[in-house]
Amino acid sequence: MKPQMLIKGVEWEGQIKDILIEGQYIKQIADSISVTAGIEIDGQGKALIPGLINAHTHAAMTLFRGIGDDMLLMPWLKEKIWPNEALLTHEDVYWGAKLACLEMIKSGTTAFLDMYYKLPATAEAVQEMGIRGVLSCACFDHFNPEQAGKSKQEIQSLFAGSDAYGPRIKFALGPHAIYTVSGALLQWIDTFSEEHNLLIQMHVAETEEEVSHSVKQFAYTPVRYLNKLGVLSPRLSIAHGLYVDEEEIRILADKGVKVVHNPASNMKLASGTTFKFTEMRKAGITVGIGTDGCSSSNNLDMTEAMKLASLLGKAWRKNPEALTADEMLYAATGQGADILELKTGRIAEGYLADLCLIDLNLPAFTPNHHFTSNLVYAANGSCIDTVICDGKLLMQNKKVPGEEEILKRVTELAKKFR
Amino acid sequence: MKPQMLIKGVEWEGQIKDILIEGQYIKQIADSISVTAGIEIDGQGKALIPGLINAHTHAAMTLFRGIGDDMLLMPWLKEKIWPNEALLTHEDVYWGAKLACLEMIKSGTTAFLDMYYKLPATAEAVQEMGIRGVLSCACFDHFNPEQAGKSKQEIQSLFAGSDAYGPRIKFALGPHAIYTVSGALLQWIDTFSEEHNLLIQMHVAETEEEVSHSVKQFAYTPVRYLNKLGVLSPRLSIAHGLYVDEEEIRILADKGVKVVHNPASNMKLASGTTFKFTEMRKAGITVGIGTDGCSSSNNLDMTEAMKLASLLGKAWRKNPEALTADEMLYAATGQGADILELKTGRIAEGYLADLCLIDLNLPAFTPNHHFTSNLVYAANGSCIDTVICDGKLLMQNKKVPGEEEILKRVTELAKKFR
Repeated sequence: MKPQMLIKGVEWEGQIKDILIEGQYIKQIADSISVTAGIEIDGQGKALIPGLINAHTHAAMTLFRGIGDDMLLMPWLKEKIWPNEALLTHEDVYWGAKLACLEMIKSGTTAFLDMYYKLPATAEAVQEMGIRGVLSCACFDHFNPEQAGKSKQEIQSLFAGSDAYGPRIKFALGPHAIYTVSGALLQWIDTFSEEHNLLIQMHVAETEEEVSHSVKQFAYTPVRYLNKLGVLSPRLSIAHGLYVDEEEIRILADKGVKVVHNPASNMKLASGTTFKFTEMRKAGITVGIGTDGCSSSNNLDMTEAMKLASLLGKAWRKNPEALTADEMLYAATGQGADILELKTGRIAEGYLADLCLIDLNLPAFTPNHHFTSNLVYAANGSCIDTVICDGKLLMQNKKVPGEEEILKRVTELAKKFR
Repeated sequence: MKPQMLIKGVEWEGQIKDILIEGQYIKQIADSISVTAGIEIDGQGKALIPGLINAHTHAAMTLFRGIGDDMLLMPWLKEKIWPNEALLTHEDVYWGAKLACLEMIKSGTTAFLDMYYKLPATAEAVQEMGIRGVLSCACFDHFNPEQAGKSKQEIQSLFAGSDAYGPRIKFALGPHAIYTVSGALLQWIDTFSEEHNLLIQMHVAETEEEVSHSVKQFAYTPVRYLNKLGVLSPRLSIAHGLYVDEEEIRILADKGVKVVHNPASNMKLASGTTFKFTEMRKAGITVGIGTDGCSSSNNLDMTEAMKLASLLGKAWRKNPEALTADEMLYAATGQGADILELKTGRIAEGYLADLCLIDLNLPAFTPNHHFTSNLVYAANGSCIDTVICDGKLLMQNKKVPGEEEILKRVTELAKKFR
């Protein structure tokens, strides 16, 4: 007999339902299910949502939380981020990523797309913590052919070892940006990803400086440059995409490229405000939401990210009707799942059992005239009571086993960063 | 012997301190205090901040949370807010305000400046819940002399009864806005407030429409119009103040007028983004932060409001150095207290014992390189563990006595609103 879990009497889309989980999947959704399950969860006073999907982050940067806020980009990178990153060990990244997973579980995220160094350390952490990670290997060549050779070797070697990372982890490619990765390496990465069916994520069109530099160095704006290189494909998702014009939106749509909006990071680093969510959706582009890393955002709370995305979108458009709560929840679940190419982000029979139960006995959900509005506009990540991923219970009553040790170890390890 | 409370070993400004509370006040702050106190609170793993001050809200609008999001201003008012407000009873406002107080306590707010109808119902709720309220009586005359007469009578009658509201409550005046209150009534309110030493709060320069209407109807922009009327004084705080030019900032500073920034509301209603925090502070204006009411913001979480204020300010200025975490915490504490004219918002001997203890055993405070950054940028209101107001313990271990009943009663009462 397969392991079974039954959620009894939970609120879902305004109705009370029972949800049966068998193995990794949602087996049945019905008004009443009478089976004896290995684990039975009382859904009374709780609402069900799909596990949230953080479509762009740098997990282990939790280690640098609170280092170098309120700084300009270049001094921040040169004085804070790069010197600290030079100190990172496998152990640091492992514990930093464990803290990230803990924070994500506690705020209802069950899958994320990462871009960072020392990928095996992150993989180990994610595998142990029980969520899903699409882990893209950060790479740069700084237009140096020798460095490009090293990057290719690293990618090949990490890919060769990636079967060992575990079943909830997908290996992916993370060329950093057009100003740090040569066109030749980008083309090699695109070919490699096609051969091995790997996803790619890249920072694109994040700042005005990036655009003007791109025009100067490559004679094209970032998206046009990537199109000329022939590296735009449905395997690619771009993080940020703040500076794209109408034609570039059409190019992204035509090529099936996905986009991830990171409102907290864009605001805090003052990268820009005018993310074209509505125009991209209208063009048929899949648009997800990310938190970015904790050194720029400074948390991994996707509930907060949904609110920020909506409020920022309404504000710059001077249109309170834009970017509704329902659109935000779909971006943070169904569309995130499409970016990560996972059968999750939706509550339906046959989908992966990646689910959150929300505690409705909170001021944020009182009164509960409109659940999605309360979730996106009134609540924050602390409303998450129970998290299930891959059919397994990761959190109940807001407690994750082992959380004290993670906080303690990260506190110790992070002392060397400043 | 006076009632005493002792907080042992709490983190405050990077040091570990004991805090002795006697009566309503902070009696002593020292490395170690050896007395036997009626209540002893273990501060280990916790950080101390002043109780937060929400300098602009409409407390009982918790009742309308989630009603009419993602709508344009006029349909929202006409189809949602006004018809629902017409149904409000004393009992509704009492329970709505109780929910607001509960939500404020749970997220660390110990004092607020309110503007709403049925003020005695709010006063009753605040008095019972144990926090401080400066309650301004919302008034309108819609340029109708008969209505103005009624408003004056209501103000006089509420003021006459205000001694009975209790010691933590201050009666104040809340003329709604220049487009709903005549110049004559504004002048009468100013005189009344001077005679009786009352604070005034008013919505001013919230939208571009308000400014253009003001120029058309009164021949002046809102601040200049109020200046011409002679109603700018240190007793007045203006909520929003989004549309003010350099000269108007100088006028506000000269007259000692205070300003309250409401970033969530300004973004969600798409009122505007360019709040001139830095320029106002430089001119010497006291600037606080508010959440606005739950029908526009949609919560009362001042931690979130601090983050939004900072991120929005950095974003529109394209300057990540602007509006630092420390400036935001000071706006939400010390400056809020100055707006409410209360001896609170600071941790010092002789100040009111309005204090919060923050749970540091959370991902948001790990690592803890910079406490204020973690509070403003990484945490949310759920980090608050213990709340003390007026020397009395209102919340411990994140639980407020009686919270279940409040949630239940509001859920029932709010069914009639839609």
